[in-house]
Amino acid sequence: VNGRRLSPDGPHISGSDRGLTLADGAFETMRVHGGRVFRLDAHLARLTRALDALGITRPTDLGAAILDVLTAESADEASLRLTVTRGPSGAGVMPVPNVQPTVIVALNPRPQFSADMHEAGIRASVASGRRNERAMTAGLKTLGYTDAVLALLEARRAGAHDALFLDTDGHCSEATSSNLFACLEGTLVTPPLSCGALPGITRAVVLELAARFGLPAVERVLELGDLAGADEAFLTSTLRGLAPLVRVGPHAIGRGEPGPVTRRLADAYIGLVVRGTEPR
Amino acid sequence: VNGRRLSPDGPHISGSDRGLTLADGAFETMRVHGGRVFRLDAHLARLTRALDALGITRPTDLGAAILDVLTAESADEASLRLTVTRGPSGAGVMPVPNVQPTVIVALNPRPQFSADMHEAGIRASVASGRRNERAMTAGLKTLGYTDAVLALLEARRAGAHDALFLDTDGHCSEATSSNLFACLEGTLVTPPLSCGALPGITRAVVLELAARFGLPAVERVLELGDLAGADEAFLTSTLRGLAPLVRVGPHAIGRGEPGPVTRRLADAYIGLVVRGTEPR
Repeated sequence: VNGRRLSPDGPHISGSDRGLTLADGAFETMRVHGGRVFRLDAHLARLTRALDALGITRPTDLGAAILDVLTAESADEASLRLTVTRGPSGAGVMPVPNVQPTVIVALNPRPQFSADMHEAGIRASVASGRRNERAMTAGLKTLGYTDAVLALLEARRAGAHDALFLDTDGHCSEATSSNLFACLEGTLVTPPLSCGALPGITRAVVLELAARFGLPAVERVLELGDLAGADEAFLTSTLRGLAPLVRVGPHAIGRGEPGPVTRRLADAYIGLVVRGTEPR
Repeated sequence: VNGRRLSPDGPHISGSDRGLTLADGAFETMRVHGGRVFRLDAHLARLTRALDALGITRPTDLGAAILDVLTAESADEASLRLTVTRGPSGAGVMPVPNVQPTVIVALNPRPQFSADMHEAGIRASVASGRRNERAMTAGLKTLGYTDAVLALLEARRAGAHDALFLDTDGHCSEATSSNLFACLEGTLVTPPLSCGALPGITRAVVLELAARFGLPAVERVLELGDLAGADEAFLTSTLRGLAPLVRVGPHAIGRGEPGPVTRRLADAYIGLVVRGTEPR
């Protein structure tokens, strides 16, 4: 926290930190493999965009702070979260000038996802609330994840693994913390950022891989009916990589099992992250 | 914090508290006068609704925790913030079972608002982003205030005091942390909760006062054009009370100065809070 190494037990943070009181900050979750962060520059660039939008001065030494933690902890395989808040301040929504941002680098074990999710695939419900593609924070990875928490709890109560958000126009947006892809007649389709999707790092990697494979891929408005009728679908996120999506609400997608395009892209992604190999 | 009295300097909270990492919690800001909290029961009831929706077990002793702080600090005139988060936890959006909620009671000096705002009235811009009346969290006072922070910063850059949010259908919703009222041909109109307005405690008090005064008052969809053409308007919040709204975007409201209905209701409100007197 702010360059100091603290016990995981804490406490670490002021109760008046605006990150806590108002979700006034941004974060990135990164995948560490072999002691290195995958796509560190892309994560830092996205964080910088969020901090710029919030008017929080980006601390200059974020890359060094991450390297220090990785070295000190001899981290090999892990999940690394970098959080930057506006810092501690008094009451009120309006930021006070000259507050020192809070920088938190936290190393966690990489979460284990049930084999069920990767082998049998993910079942998603459709969230009862909508993603707001015209929010002040649309496209920014801020600390405001309350809607995602609520949607995930709702999904689990319905026996689903995750929830799919529609935007306020009823188009597919994304899942609670993953981007969405569908294969429609040989074309890979992912909702555009204008439908409230976050510009995911893994989403960008998948679009790169598709280009290398000569697989047509477009950002295009995706209706729920298109998704239900797709040949295959998958979700992308830093920690989960590519996860097959086999069911949305009552509808099986394709044969209701992971498809060949998903498997090929998932293997290529794992090759990039874990084996450091270029896709075949 | 969790019943312990800590130095204001901190640290107080774990960096892995889900209140900080995911805005996974709710809060209330209350007005303390004469050592007592105004409408404590209403605040605790609203907090309970938010915690129930989030599936966070409401700590049973919140009223006692507040009383302890007020007594220990001999607080007379103050702003009191009660925050309840889901508590510290590992990575991931899905809550882990059996996490102990974090309870923070913070006493702050009541913020001083510039005389300008109360005497000359508030100028509001219209936020470039929309309030999502169909969010999972609509109507809940959660920790997710990032949109409000961004809208307020945008308003200040435009030379305004506050920002008015429209909902996704383009109807008036509320300001960044206040409810909106307009006087239209003798009737007090406030946007319904279905337009994304938070169920404000002061909003409810104003509706009660209007009933006592025999002033017609309704919750009704309010268009921006209606507001611009209103006789008077005002914003309501716990800390600011009733604040005259005299301008929205380029439009003066009424004569561009606080109106008689606003003044009468504001006086009655102050009578209730500060003087403990019933309205005349």
